[in-house]
Amino acid sequence: MTGDLVEALGRIVGPRWVRHRPAELSTYAADGLPTHEATPGAVVLPGSKREVAEVLRLLHLLKVPFVARGAGTGLSGGALAHSDAVLVTLTRLNRILAVRPEQRRAVVEPGVVNAKLSEAVAPHGLYYVPDPSSQSACTIGGNVAENAGGPHCLKYGVTTNHVTALQVILPDGETLRLGSPQGESWGPDLVGLFIGSEGMFGVAVEITVRLEPLPRAIRTVFADFLSLRAASEAVSAIIASGVVPAALEMMDQSCVRAVEASIYATGARTDAAAVLLAELDGSLESVEADGAVVEGLLRAHGAREVRSAYSPADRGRLWQGRKKAFGALGRIAPDLAVQDAVVPRSVLPDILDQVSAIRDRLGLQISNVFHAGDGNLHPCISFDRRDRDQTRRVEQASREIMEACLAVGGSVTGEHGVGSDKVEYMPQAFSAAALDLMCEVRRAFDPEARANPGKVFPTHTCREWRRGGAA
Amino acid sequence: MTGDLVEALGRIVGPRWVRHRPAELSTYAADGLPTHEATPGAVVLPGSKREVAEVLRLLHLLKVPFVARGAGTGLSGGALAHSDAVLVTLTRLNRILAVRPEQRRAVVEPGVVNAKLSEAVAPHGLYYVPDPSSQSACTIGGNVAENAGGPHCLKYGVTTNHVTALQVILPDGETLRLGSPQGESWGPDLVGLFIGSEGMFGVAVEITVRLEPLPRAIRTVFADFLSLRAASEAVSAIIASGVVPAALEMMDQSCVRAVEASIYATGARTDAAAVLLAELDGSLESVEADGAVVEGLLRAHGAREVRSAYSPADRGRLWQGRKKAFGALGRIAPDLAVQDAVVPRSVLPDILDQVSAIRDRLGLQISNVFHAGDGNLHPCISFDRRDRDQTRRVEQASREIMEACLAVGGSVTGEHGVGSDKVEYMPQAFSAAALDLMCEVRRAFDPEARANPGKVFPTHTCREWRRGGAA
Repeated sequence: MTGDLVEALGRIVGPRWVRHRPAELSTYAADGLPTHEATPGAVVLPGSKREVAEVLRLLHLLKVPFVARGAGTGLSGGALAHSDAVLVTLTRLNRILAVRPEQRRAVVEPGVVNAKLSEAVAPHGLYYVPDPSSQSACTIGGNVAENAGGPHCLKYGVTTNHVTALQVILPDGETLRLGSPQGESWGPDLVGLFIGSEGMFGVAVEITVRLEPLPRAIRTVFADFLSLRAASEAVSAIIASGVVPAALEMMDQSCVRAVEASIYATGARTDAAAVLLAELDGSLESVEADGAVVEGLLRAHGAREVRSAYSPADRGRLWQGRKKAFGALGRIAPDLAVQDAVVPRSVLPDILDQVSAIRDRLGLQISNVFHAGDGNLHPCISFDRRDRDQTRRVEQASREIMEACLAVGGSVTGEHGVGSDKVEYMPQAFSAAALDLMCEVRRAFDPEARANPGKVFPTHTCREWRRGGAA
Repeated sequence: MTGDLVEALGRIVGPRWVRHRPAELSTYAADGLPTHEATPGAVVLPGSKREVAEVLRLLHLLKVPFVARGAGTGLSGGALAHSDAVLVTLTRLNRILAVRPEQRRAVVEPGVVNAKLSEAVAPHGLYYVPDPSSQSACTIGGNVAENAGGPHCLKYGVTTNHVTALQVILPDGETLRLGSPQGESWGPDLVGLFIGSEGMFGVAVEITVRLEPLPRAIRTVFADFLSLRAASEAVSAIIASGVVPAALEMMDQSCVRAVEASIYATGARTDAAAVLLAELDGSLESVEADGAVVEGLLRAHGAREVRSAYSPADRGRLWQGRKKAFGALGRIAPDLAVQDAVVPRSVLPDILDQVSAIRDRLGLQISNVFHAGDGNLHPCISFDRRDRDQTRRVEQASREIMEACLAVGGSVTGEHGVGSDKVEYMPQAFSAAALDLMCEVRRAFDPEARANPGKVFPTHTCREWRRGGAA
């Protein structure tokens, strides 16, 4: 990156908010997925939406690509920039601009940490529903880019169901408002389109979100099983019963053992093949009734031990293993590749058998955490990225797992996005015509494809524009 | 329309499925909104998706605009075609192609009548959630075009929350699949973008929808109030309580009187200023508990009479007035203009005062039906379209009501779409830059703007393309 550009960026945001020395840049060379790395040409940290707009206008004039980044907790290599691009980090835009309890809305900047918003609105008896596992670190702007999910999305939907309006800055620096605070979309739904666009359509600088009332009662049910298949069948039975748990999470034996060997140990028995957590919320009467249904189904499907809790402290203990699973897995090896795929619930046991076979054949350690109710699996591969051969086998295993999921009609991302990691699968999942159309839509926002280049679409896909004649 | 085109269309679909004589065309000159009329150049009724594709390819070659139409029950003049355009009516594509109870999915053609799908899947204990008031006539294709809502969308969301994948034919005749049956969007969410695009992006020929388990228990609570404001405050109190009713509907006195004067009379007392219906669903225990909360709040806010029902027959009686309201209003005058707007719930009473003032000043009869929980109001203006002066006053009243809603931060459509009727408000609700961007996105699907021309965007808005250079 030229010194001139660095200096010009410094004039906009102040020189201390531009990073360009190799040691500074290395901090930004990865996100939460350790198999991918890239070092940006420069990093700029604007302090206001006006500065974001000025930075984007400058980069537009100079035809320099850019990548927007939140906390960098993403798991698809989506927030990586190469040396020809500027990384625009939005963590300084971290203000909650308005809370409107009467209308159940809040307006936040993109750098607001997910969990901080729920903390801030709790005195009004409200919370922000989407709860990615990284919610104590990840930002709402990043959640918008990835259309992030979380355990409680089974009942309540993902980020797109909880954002009603956006103020965005397009890649040419133009600022505009999309959607309406009330939340009805009319005309083409650009808010829904922007959410999950993985940084390709511009930068959201103000996000209007729905707030929901805190549940009146919550009941968490824990069960362990001696067979993973039995646990999966219990999940299907719960869903079929018509009870809609707020969350329905599963961990396999490898994961339980990692937790129980760590400081997060919960006393779960490590001979369990799987542990299931179901959470019910609503009125006290309904969680009691639904809990009884769920407990009955768990026992009918062979649960060895079933525990139930209502108080925050007791529920926290039941959740602890799941919440700290990634941390506990981090003790096994220096690096952890958390994968993401979705399959029809009914084939979960078969896919898990295939994951085990891949693990054994490639000599890797794979632990599984699932949003089981959604059929969203997260195989977690422990490894050491300094070991080239092992890293290659991790990539191989990821590929084989993804292909197995596609083969049963699944998707290769449930909530982590396509980013760098899943680009290669796009042509397997979408026809050339559908990819073409996606590229055309992108062009409406970013005719030069300068925003997050190289992500989501295989590079050859968007190289030419089929429609409209300009090319 | 030339005889050549009529003949060419006939060669694709068979001559009996092309209408071109004035008497035939007059059937298609209006949809559910009687203030707008237009007569298409020709009407074609394809019998398969292959025929739809061939028709669209032919129209593309000839540069002829077209309008897709379902049952024509829409309330924004969205399915009207002018004499230079061909109306493509999809009612013959009315097959349920697949029902997959295990995966809770069905695949339907666009002409399937909404209520027929729920009937067909009921033996599996499932139903299709979105329930527009016209559900016994409207089609799922039309619901997709309009992103239709309905009374139960308060708890369960609108059409876009219940469609996971689409097969669409673009305006140039190309067929492609959008989305994945599992329902995760990855890459830009073209399914979400297509839903609610009001026929501007192409024709959906296969629609994959979610099915949900029939509620285990349902309780309907009916209350009448001597003050509309008190009823509105009861609505706010119910929402604030954290109980999420499946539906929360309101009718004003004029509406109640119309029902009670009709064959649909329910025995409601006609001195009531408002009638409120709350429906609760879930486990028996939860609907009992939530029902007690709701009944308590209704009484605390001055409800005169509160009735509650569990059985389908008893619930049907409580719902009858609301379900038949439009029919009953049809007895008052030959025509009924059902308007659509959304305001923050807290200002509902103020908006209703303004509607009353507009009614009195313009000498009209306006009855109000609301999806009260959403702040979605439907002022229904009774009139006779043969009376030119009265029709002009109806249009004036609609305009004044819309402007009042916009002034309090509301939207001028909640679920009926923009169509022909709301075009003029787009520039009041969206900036030129946002409208521009919508037009650009439309261009990705339809570079010639031949699909449903003149709807949604004021004609000058999309006349030129800002980005990309081609114009």
